[in-house]
Amino acid sequence: MATRSYAIIGTGAVGGFYGAKLQKAGLEVHFLLNRDYEFVRTQGLKIDSLEGNFTLPQVQAYNDVHQMPPCDVVIVALKTTHNYLLPQLLPPIVKPDGVVLLLQNGLNVEPQIAEIVGEKRVMGGLCFICSNKVGPGHIQHIDYSAVHLGEYQAQYQPGGISERMQEIGRDFQQANIPVELTEDLMLSRWKKLVWNIPYNGLSVVLDARTDEIMANPETRLLAEELMGEVVAIASSYNRHLPKNYIELMLDHTDKMKPYLTSMKLDYDAHRPLELEAIVGNPLQAAIAQGVDVPKITMLYQQLKFLDARNQTILR
Amino acid sequence: MATRSYAIIGTGAVGGFYGAKLQKAGLEVHFLLNRDYEFVRTQGLKIDSLEGNFTLPQVQAYNDVHQMPPCDVVIVALKTTHNYLLPQLLPPIVKPDGVVLLLQNGLNVEPQIAEIVGEKRVMGGLCFICSNKVGPGHIQHIDYSAVHLGEYQAQYQPGGISERMQEIGRDFQQANIPVELTEDLMLSRWKKLVWNIPYNGLSVVLDARTDEIMANPETRLLAEELMGEVVAIASSYNRHLPKNYIELMLDHTDKMKPYLTSMKLDYDAHRPLELEAIVGNPLQAAIAQGVDVPKITMLYQQLKFLDARNQTILR
Repeated sequence: MATRSYAIIGTGAVGGFYGAKLQKAGLEVHFLLNRDYEFVRTQGLKIDSLEGNFTLPQVQAYNDVHQMPPCDVVIVALKTTHNYLLPQLLPPIVKPDGVVLLLQNGLNVEPQIAEIVGEKRVMGGLCFICSNKVGPGHIQHIDYSAVHLGEYQAQYQPGGISERMQEIGRDFQQANIPVELTEDLMLSRWKKLVWNIPYNGLSVVLDARTDEIMANPETRLLAEELMGEVVAIASSYNRHLPKNYIELMLDHTDKMKPYLTSMKLDYDAHRPLELEAIVGNPLQAAIAQGVDVPKITMLYQQLKFLDARNQTILR
Repeated sequence: MATRSYAIIGTGAVGGFYGAKLQKAGLEVHFLLNRDYEFVRTQGLKIDSLEGNFTLPQVQAYNDVHQMPPCDVVIVALKTTHNYLLPQLLPPIVKPDGVVLLLQNGLNVEPQIAEIVGEKRVMGGLCFICSNKVGPGHIQHIDYSAVHLGEYQAQYQPGGISERMQEIGRDFQQANIPVELTEDLMLSRWKKLVWNIPYNGLSVVLDARTDEIMANPETRLLAEELMGEVVAIASSYNRHLPKNYIELMLDHTDKMKPYLTSMKLDYDAHRPLELEAIVGNPLQAAIAQGVDVPKITMLYQQLKFLDARNQTILR
């Protein structure tokens, strides 16, 4: 069996962690870096993880895609707010029979990738991981690490379980990353959005951790109602979530440690929010189907205001 | 014509201003005070106003309603969050044929007063005034001062223009306070809520002035949509606002100077919000009529969260 080469676009909390794990498992990995290029080129990567710390003193680091070899699997792990760079970054580094694996949150990003590299070379992935970049080339892995992989097909038609998904899945498992293969990427995306929309959104608007949102009966109900709107959009695309799914998500969140969402971390660091991928695109999907989602709409309006001000006023 | 005696319950930015104006015009006024009692008893009241500064070195100040004479008109100008005191405060000081004039924001406060003093002794008033208490017995009057008066009848049935309204109106005019008499108190309350709900609510949730809310197209639209929900509740009570009323309110707000709402000032000072009178009671009124108001509901949920936290965490 031929081994696959990997490129990592966005060597941060997510891309840095998965790339390092793959390299540690013996796979060929090429890392694209920007700010941290000089540091990582000379010092490598350092992973602090409850599954065991490790360092990779030497990695193949690049700051220019034209220096990179075309790879079999190109993992995109940028913030979606940097996806405007992808039309320049992707074409040189995806092999003709290679695939782009999009490890990002949100909805309707795959179609944008398909426009760049063609529909047949896009796969989606959802990461269930808590990790942070704590310094150049230095990643702290806090909890979880599972990845769900799904083939992308036009309009998110279910793509089934392909040969290449299984191969990539085996690479991840070899690197001790739990993997699930999904036949229906869109269903998986809606499932994750049921959690992401209420908690990412409300954590920013209310300046609150998940446990604070859950402890107050009004905002706990609001989170539940927002979940209900997400489930309604999914249904309009014939993705019917299990009846008790909302209850499961609420229970799950009750049991979580106090948690600041990624959108809240971005907000506090005055980075642009991943607002379109996580809230705006699902809202557009609702509008396209004529589904009324007033609370998601209001959440989006509030976040647009806060994001715009957050970019202009540092205070 | 007999002259009327006035009692002022809540000698702050609103009650202190109107009470002082009435006394200056020669009327008999009795002021109930709490924290500022000693100061005002010995030093009187001081009004800084663009219509002319004045001081009242001597006022009739009390810190106990049992020392006060029963009055013809008892003006309630407390924050609604202190209305739980009224069952103790009102009975001793309202003459048998006197009236309680409620100068507070919001909806469905009059029925609570009616329970204490009886339906026939309740009148409502809406104040269009910008004023602040800047120190003990010291009120700064910034802009406007008009009062709209309306008789209260059970379930806000329109009360028409009564003799006593006209008399009180003449007292106010004698004190240079512009007065309008309204036949339908509930209509006036809904009109004011069209402005108060969106701007008071959003100014707290988004930590924003009115001009910031209006400058962003998303939150401008959100304010307009919230106004639409208020208009819909009013309609369900057969109070039909003029077709261009929302447009008028938006235009009016565009032209206002940057403004922090009273709810935002309360929030920043860690005082309890007038949340039930301004948002909660209108929301209950919608639920009672089966009117769906998802955005007001969400605003209420968010404000309940923020108000509760604001009372427990000073930061």
